[in-house]
Amino acid sequence: MSSTYGNHLKLSIFGQSHGKAIGMTLDGIPAGLPVDLEALQSFLNRRAPGQHEYDTPRKEEDKPEFLSGVLDGFTCGAPIAAVIYNQNTRSGDYSNLKDCPRPGHADYTAQIKYGGYQDIAGGGHFSGRLTAALCIAGGLCKQWLAQRGIQIAAHIVSIAGIGDDPLFLDWIDPDFSLISSDFPVLNPEAGKKMKEAIAIAKKDGDSVGGIIECIATGLPAGLGGPLFGGMEGKIAQAVYGIPAVKGIDFGSGFSGSFLRGSENNDEYAVQDGKIVTKTNHAGGILGGITTGMPLVFQAAIKPTPSILKEQGSISLTAMENKSLQIHGRHDPCIVPRAVPVVEAAAAIAIFDALLEE
Amino acid sequence: MSSTYGNHLKLSIFGQSHGKAIGMTLDGIPAGLPVDLEALQSFLNRRAPGQHEYDTPRKEEDKPEFLSGVLDGFTCGAPIAAVIYNQNTRSGDYSNLKDCPRPGHADYTAQIKYGGYQDIAGGGHFSGRLTAALCIAGGLCKQWLAQRGIQIAAHIVSIAGIGDDPLFLDWIDPDFSLISSDFPVLNPEAGKKMKEAIAIAKKDGDSVGGIIECIATGLPAGLGGPLFGGMEGKIAQAVYGIPAVKGIDFGSGFSGSFLRGSENNDEYAVQDGKIVTKTNHAGGILGGITTGMPLVFQAAIKPTPSILKEQGSISLTAMENKSLQIHGRHDPCIVPRAVPVVEAAAAIAIFDALLEE
Amino acid sequence: MSSTYGNHLKLSIFGQSHGKAIGMTLDGIPAGLPVDLEALQSFLNRRAPGQHEYDTPRKEEDKPEFLSGVLDGFTCGAPIAAVIYNQNTRSGDYSNLKDCPRPGHADYTAQIKYGGYQDIAGGGHFSGRLTAALCIAGGLCKQWLAQRGIQIAAHIVSIAGIGDDPLFLDWIDPDFSLISSDFPVLNPEAGKKMKEAIAIAKKDGDSVGGIIECIATGLPAGLGGPLFGGMEGKIAQAVYGIPAVKGIDFGSGFSGSFLRGSENNDEYAVQDGKIVTKTNHAGGILGGITTGMPLVFQAAIKPTPSILKEQGSISLTAMENKSLQIHGRHDPCIVPRAVPVVEAAAAIAIFDALLEE
Amino acid sequence: MSSTYGNHLKLSIFGQSHGKAIGMTLDGIPAGLPVDLEALQSFLNRRAPGQHEYDTPRKEEDKPEFLSGVLDGFTCGAPIAAVIYNQNTRSGDYSNLKDCPRPGHADYTAQIKYGGYQDIAGGGHFSGRLTAALCIAGGLCKQWLAQRGIQIAAHIVSIAGIGDDPLFLDWIDPDFSLISSDFPVLNPEAGKKMKEAIAIAKKDGDSVGGIIECIATGLPAGLGGPLFGGMEGKIAQAVYGIPAVKGIDFGSGFSGSFLRGSENNDEYAVQDGKIVTKTNHAGGILGGITTGMPLVFQAAIKPTPSILKEQGSISLTAMENKSLQIHGRHDPCIVPRAVPVVEAAAAIAIFDALLEE
Repeated sequence: MSSTYGNHLKLSIFGQSHGKAIGMTLDGIPAGLPVDLEALQSFLNRRAPGQHEYDTPRKEEDKPEFLSGVLDGFTCGAPIAAVIYNQNTRSGDYSNLKDCPRPGHADYTAQIKYGGYQDIAGGGHFSGRLTAALCIAGGLCKQWLAQRGIQIAAHIVSIAGIGDDPLFLDWIDPDFSLISSDFPVLNPEAGKKMKEAIAIAKKDGDSVGGIIECIATGLPAGLGGPLFGGMEGKIAQAVYGIPAVKGIDFGSGFSGSFLRGSENNDEYAVQDGKIVTKTNHAGGILGGITTGMPLVFQAAIKPTPSILKEQGSISLTAMENKSLQIHGRHDPCIVPRAVPVVEAAAAIAIFDALLEE
Repeated sequence: MSSTYGNHLKLSIFGQSHGKAIGMTLDGIPAGLPVDLEALQSFLNRRAPGQHEYDTPRKEEDKPEFLSGVLDGFTCGAPIAAVIYNQNTRSGDYSNLKDCPRPGHADYTAQIKYGGYQDIAGGGHFSGRLTAALCIAGGLCKQWLAQRGIQIAAHIVSIAGIGDDPLFLDWIDPDFSLISSDFPVLNPEAGKKMKEAIAIAKKDGDSVGGIIECIATGLPAGLGGPLFGGMEGKIAQAVYGIPAVKGIDFGSGFSGSFLRGSENNDEYAVQDGKIVTKTNHAGGILGGITTGMPLVFQAAIKPTPSILKEQGSISLTAMENKSLQIHGRHDPCIVPRAVPVVEAAAAIAIFDALLEE
Repeated sequence: MSSTYGNHLKLSIFGQSHGKAIGMTLDGIPAGLPVDLEALQSFLNRRAPGQHEYDTPRKEEDKPEFLSGVLDGFTCGAPIAAVIYNQNTRSGDYSNLKDCPRPGHADYTAQIKYGGYQDIAGGGHFSGRLTAALCIAGGLCKQWLAQRGIQIAAHIVSIAGIGDDPLFLDWIDPDFSLISSDFPVLNPEAGKKMKEAIAIAKKDGDSVGGIIECIATGLPAGLGGPLFGGMEGKIAQAVYGIPAVKGIDFGSGFSGSFLRGSENNDEYAVQDGKIVTKTNHAGGILGGITTGMPLVFQAAIKPTPSILKEQGSISLTAMENKSLQIHGRHDPCIVPRAVPVVEAAAAIAIFDALLEE
Repeated sequence: MSSTYGNHLKLSIFGQSHGKAIGMTLDGIPAGLPVDLEALQSFLNRRAPGQHEYDTPRKEEDKPEFLSGVLDGFTCGAPIAAVIYNQNTRSGDYSNLKDCPRPGHADYTAQIKYGGYQDIAGGGHFSGRLTAALCIAGGLCKQWLAQRGIQIAAHIVSIAGIGDDPLFLDWIDPDFSLISSDFPVLNPEAGKKMKEAIAIAKKDGDSVGGIIECIATGLPAGLGGPLFGGMEGKIAQAVYGIPAVKGIDFGSGFSGSFLRGSENNDEYAVQDGKIVTKTNHAGGILGGITTGMPLVFQAAIKPTPSILKEQGSISLTAMENKSLQIHGRHDPCIVPRAVPVVEAAAAIAIFDALLEE
């Protein structure tokens, strides 16, 4: 029941889709870390809406204003607080949803939990718009990790069932330049087909989902811990903080469950005086603790629930079935915009693990 | 870095595989809840080793002794503490593993994290044996959930790639009697093939993994919350507390990412005066909050890393490659014994969510 | 290392004295609670500076802007975020303090902890100004407690050693109307002498401290818990969040330690069908749990460290002794302005305890 | 509602006074810390009952059995779990207290909170006996702090209003050898008078309370943080975990509130190349952060509520007044035995603060 994350750091995300502002506070960050606002803005722009044909046409600059915690370009030890004032809000679009919940959205569950007091406009606090605040925190953590030699990147593994190749899982020594920034795939042909699938779905008034793979390199061995303190659980909790995520696995994950132990185990070797594993089916985590190999996970993004097609719903007041057609502005596919958000969630979890040491 | 779980309740798990005892403390439990020790023992027996040909031959009764928190058959408000004294320990089996880490185990990462001070015997605190303590907590939570009409059950979706059918995902109104207790599958034919696959792997000195599906029925709508307080994150953190789990998804999860929004959205309907969804691809969770439909998730269990086959490893002291052959007692497949453990983790997470209301 | 408080609710306070804004996020609040902004403003005005001769002349309206969590006068379930933009800032006053720390302030400890990156202006995040943000959270909690019949009030027990009378400790059935709002004492004569003592200290370029007593009535029996979950610890942690507090005791507290058990024990009695204690030396708490009698505690407020008199300090760069004279705007006595802050901290702790039930 | 403490470390205390055992789990402790069981036993013996005429005659050896977390004399990274099996239990003494609560004890509040399911025998989980478990954790933390040059000691400031002298507050460079171990006072004459006062109270069937002062030396500057993360709040929460504590203040504390700023401020000076303060009214904490000077606090211990004198109580079932005479074994004064417990609580809080860095 909490929009708060972290053990050593404390991240609190606030705001509603069509409220005055969204934002975040981030407590527990050491003083003296440099803050590159320009690089942060570039990172936020990767998520910002209204830039591509597969995005919602809602225009938001997503320019954070820092109220606390940053002084002369460095963290000053005080909690960091930043807000993004909403600009392009349209509360009128959502008036009838209080009675007739949209399938796949949180309208009904919010109604039950908040007894009708929730902000329904644009999904309120449940909106994907809140991930902009997540990206402020995550974008900062990414910068601070990079200064310690830890890189985080992600690509689109699949959209609408069309797969990219090859997987990060096989990347022992990744070359991040292969990933282009606003539709990151390794195989441009696959990327082209994905975009076509999105365009067709859009024309059909429908939407598509996909899978994102994320990698963190340069991690020291020894982060995390056993049982509930494991990196898998830490990262999963952060990544499940992203509204559309419905699955996460690490390394060979679900597909590894089809293998034999002799196939899935990663053999150790000494290479150039360093300890490595010859494969990385563990996704860089054993016993909840980083091995020093790249940390790799995949996240399943459900197809955007907002579609133009008529759907079956109910009237909560009349308690009878009722069909629903959603208007308003929506993404036929949020997967490309979700890529930096997954990176952000990973960065927050990993930075928190580093601070716990 | 913490073997502790929970928001309202606080579960702390302790012990080492071949230490004096394992156990748990469970704080934050209301007073006056009945404790059925016999039912708890039956639940623990489902996980206990040494019962089937696919288990480790290590014999442990796994009989918990309650030191605190239970009085005359009811919780008394004090933290619950229970221990299981280890009986069948063999510390001699593991002496050389300090130098030569087993692939797929936490030997190497524990060495890095704990600097050689870790208890190496049987994996120490990283051992699957610790899940017996998890099952004490989870078995109790399961009882208390059942008293509120909430049932938790799980079956083996696949072992070694051999699939069971049908999935709980389609169970709007589940019939739990279909699941037999110590090798729970819905299709007995599939179960037979799975057992054969285990037997072959065992003969080969190898191991197999699998997938477990878990369902919770009778949940009220409204548990959980947005962002980091979502049920997915809460459950994921508990389930990733199980050493062998490498993936978790909810509802249609990864496969849902291949669908269109119009296919994946669950339409609402009024049925017998109650609000339901016609399908349950959301796995009973929208916006991190329960919908009142069955909560469904799948967990990927990696193949047991302990295999008899020779594997490539290293000498940590000599910093050179070295081949390793593991002796000792191991499960060729832990999936059947992991079924109650997954139920236990789910029960703990759900009971914690209930207490948070 | 965290400006965050709470178990069920999560309060995070941010901002620096002369930064852009101060504010707070408050997560975990149920939806549907009414928010009376006018009453909140009245409460904040009790703490606002620049109103009396014993205040700092810094003028701040302390008008919070709500960015999230409140909709049409009610909480909407989303985290509440509110900011107060600083208006009357003067960063120039503080430039030399980076080298020469003020006695009694956090300048030196902040320098050590934050390595020179801290915001020194006006004490930065350590400033008493941050208590305005605490009062937003506490003012809201006070409203919500009042709706449940729980009243919180406080008075000045002593300033500069001049004592008020009688103590709340003896109030079994308190009459809050006795307390005037901006200099709350029970004995107006004592209040007059206190004001004189402040005026003399001000003329001397010096400052005075005092003690505040706080009472909460209407509490149900049964809030809190044993050991670390006790109400004393919960309230103490909140009240020690106020920068100037250096002591807190409950009920007869320190003076009770001089009594015998037969004097200090509160005998039970049945009165008008209700269970009461004849005295209230326990301050309404036994075993960490509320008894249903008024909860009473006292907090010691140290004399304002900012004084005009010359003081001995050091040069951190030259590592030699150096005398320091502080200029700028300061309160000769913050005790009157601290009264609502103590009420706020108590309200937050008690509301959190209520939500934990 | 939680018997759990800590941010980085997680301490969970369990057990009931006359249950099978009491104990604790302590998670988050680094591996490789030496554990001196003999020194721990000496520390526990300082608290153990039945040794002096002012103690309860209940005999308990208080010999902890370690179940987890310690291997060959060092912490191994796994959570530390230790239990003390109760030996000298007498549940029969307490049977009528379920109806007729003892003044000053938690009997009534436990009844309300736990609805009659609480373990009433000897106060159950509320018993001072639980502080033996606190002393296991605290005794270990004390050892680990000592290895880093941090010493913690305490003495009896007053019993029954008879004061010791001088206060630690004036100890810039303390000589701990002045404190004798089982009745630690600085002035032996005062100690003699205190013992006489206890003897008289005992003869009267009554009890006395007192004040304990605790000091920690060798702390680095920079531990703790602003607002709710301050050392005062951290230590207060730990110390209020001790059942009999009703007050805590730091440095000059309550008496400092009578001083002027010019008197209470601690001037800085450079001494032998180190930064010190000439006085230590701040008790070694400014802005919630350690200054490097000795950390000093006082804790008020209420007179033991168990007295032989007849007291007014009620019958909960009949809802009428009823007089009560308590039999059984009790301490006329717990202050001497509380001294190591206060040290233990301080050690836990300070070690947690160190681990948070």
